[in-house]
Amino acid sequence: MAAAEAVGAARESVLDAACAIEMVHCFSLVHDDLPAIDNDDLRRGVPTLHKKFGEAMAILAGDALFALAFEILSHSPHEPVRVVAALRQLSRASGTQGLVGGEVVDVLSEGRAVDAETLRFIHSHKTGALIAASCEIGGALGGGSEEQVKALTTYGERIGLAFQIADDILNETSTPEQLGKAAGSDRERQKATYPALYGLEESRKMAIQAADEGIRVLRNNDVSDGFLGELALYSVERLH
Amino acid sequence: MAAAEAVGAARESVLDAACAIEMVHCFSLVHDDLPAIDNDDLRRGVPTLHKKFGEAMAILAGDALFALAFEILSHSPHEPVRVVAALRQLSRASGTQGLVGGEVVDVLSEGRAVDAETLRFIHSHKTGALIAASCEIGGALGGGSEEQVKALTTYGERIGLAFQIADDILNETSTPEQLGKAAGSDRERQKATYPALYGLEESRKMAIQAADEGIRVLRNNDVSDGFLGELALYSVERLH
Repeated sequence: MAAAEAVGAARESVLDAACAIEMVHCFSLVHDDLPAIDNDDLRRGVPTLHKKFGEAMAILAGDALFALAFEILSHSPHEPVRVVAALRQLSRASGTQGLVGGEVVDVLSEGRAVDAETLRFIHSHKTGALIAASCEIGGALGGGSEEQVKALTTYGERIGLAFQIADDILNETSTPEQLGKAAGSDRERQKATYPALYGLEESRKMAIQAADEGIRVLRNNDVSDGFLGELALYSVERLH
Repeated sequence: MAAAEAVGAARESVLDAACAIEMVHCFSLVHDDLPAIDNDDLRRGVPTLHKKFGEAMAILAGDALFALAFEILSHSPHEPVRVVAALRQLSRASGTQGLVGGEVVDVLSEGRAVDAETLRFIHSHKTGALIAASCEIGGALGGGSEEQVKALTTYGERIGLAFQIADDILNETSTPEQLGKAAGSDRERQKATYPALYGLEESRKMAIQAADEGIRVLRNNDVSDGFLGELALYSVERLH
């Protein structure tokens, strides 16, 4: 009972941060789907926001979600010095050094031949940065040691890469029904992806390797790999 | 010399906050100008961002500026508890309860008859909230008393209103050369404005009255109205 309560309290204490990160993620999807960027009609099996409510509302809804992410995180019950650090990490992971930076290079690379280094930059910024930040923020707010927080950040970077490679593969191999969004759209738009650069088989291996590295870094730094191990496997399991 | 140094140090200590607010303001202009929203070609006398670099880059540049605003503010040298409060105020003033909320109602009101209450909502949210937040954040970070910070917030709301009414009037009465952006565009789009609702003369009076109220609330609460008094007058002086 005491353990369950402790887990419950720990979960409660990072709920603001978890919501904030999910909001940044959603905001980025809404803007990504816009006609000027990915021009996607379907997301999670339903029409994208701009298809349903128009472009102006989609742009503004994304902006509002982004603002709300910081507002919610600013209400986190932890010590102010940790909350400031979390807000800093979230903003850095969202901007030019993270999500938006990756998105910009992604947009500029469309229709061009992209080398491995650029592809890694895109994925590590566009997807990896926010996943890494979520691990870093959770570890820091939850009171992890410096080594543990660092291990969690590296873990986040690795499973972020694994997840994005898996996403590239699924875009190539799934039906729209399975994905809840358009399939094969990356190829049509000549987008930089792992399957395009390395082929499907090699991409699968790279995704699994990245997830394995993520689990290993936790084990080597005394961080429980129970739930996080499951999560790492989940990021690639749809490939098996 | 000591006074000049004190002023210099005070200015230095809120520089991060000032930059953050300017970045939120710029981000909102970049998104406002987009084809899906105001579709403006000119801003500050030069082509708008999307005219020069395309819509995708304009959306992403706005997002990046927004993220950078929070990152910069998170580096503020003040006590963490104050910095968290400042980040909370900035995010609230930017989102549905401020800037974006006003923008949404503004977009939804285009081409419709708008009553005085709706127009006040639009202006107080779209323009007033960020100006009020800049006064509130500066007052709080600078170590003002609760009454002084409250007075500064009210002052910000009043001059925000004055500034927006003046902006409405200038859009109606100026040339594109004077404005650095398209003139008369509000009327063409049947946008809700003070001149459209109250006429030019009454609008001028309302702007001056709002600025006067802003100055008065400072004087009544022991806040120096030197620079801030000038600023209040500046917000409407182009109308004289």
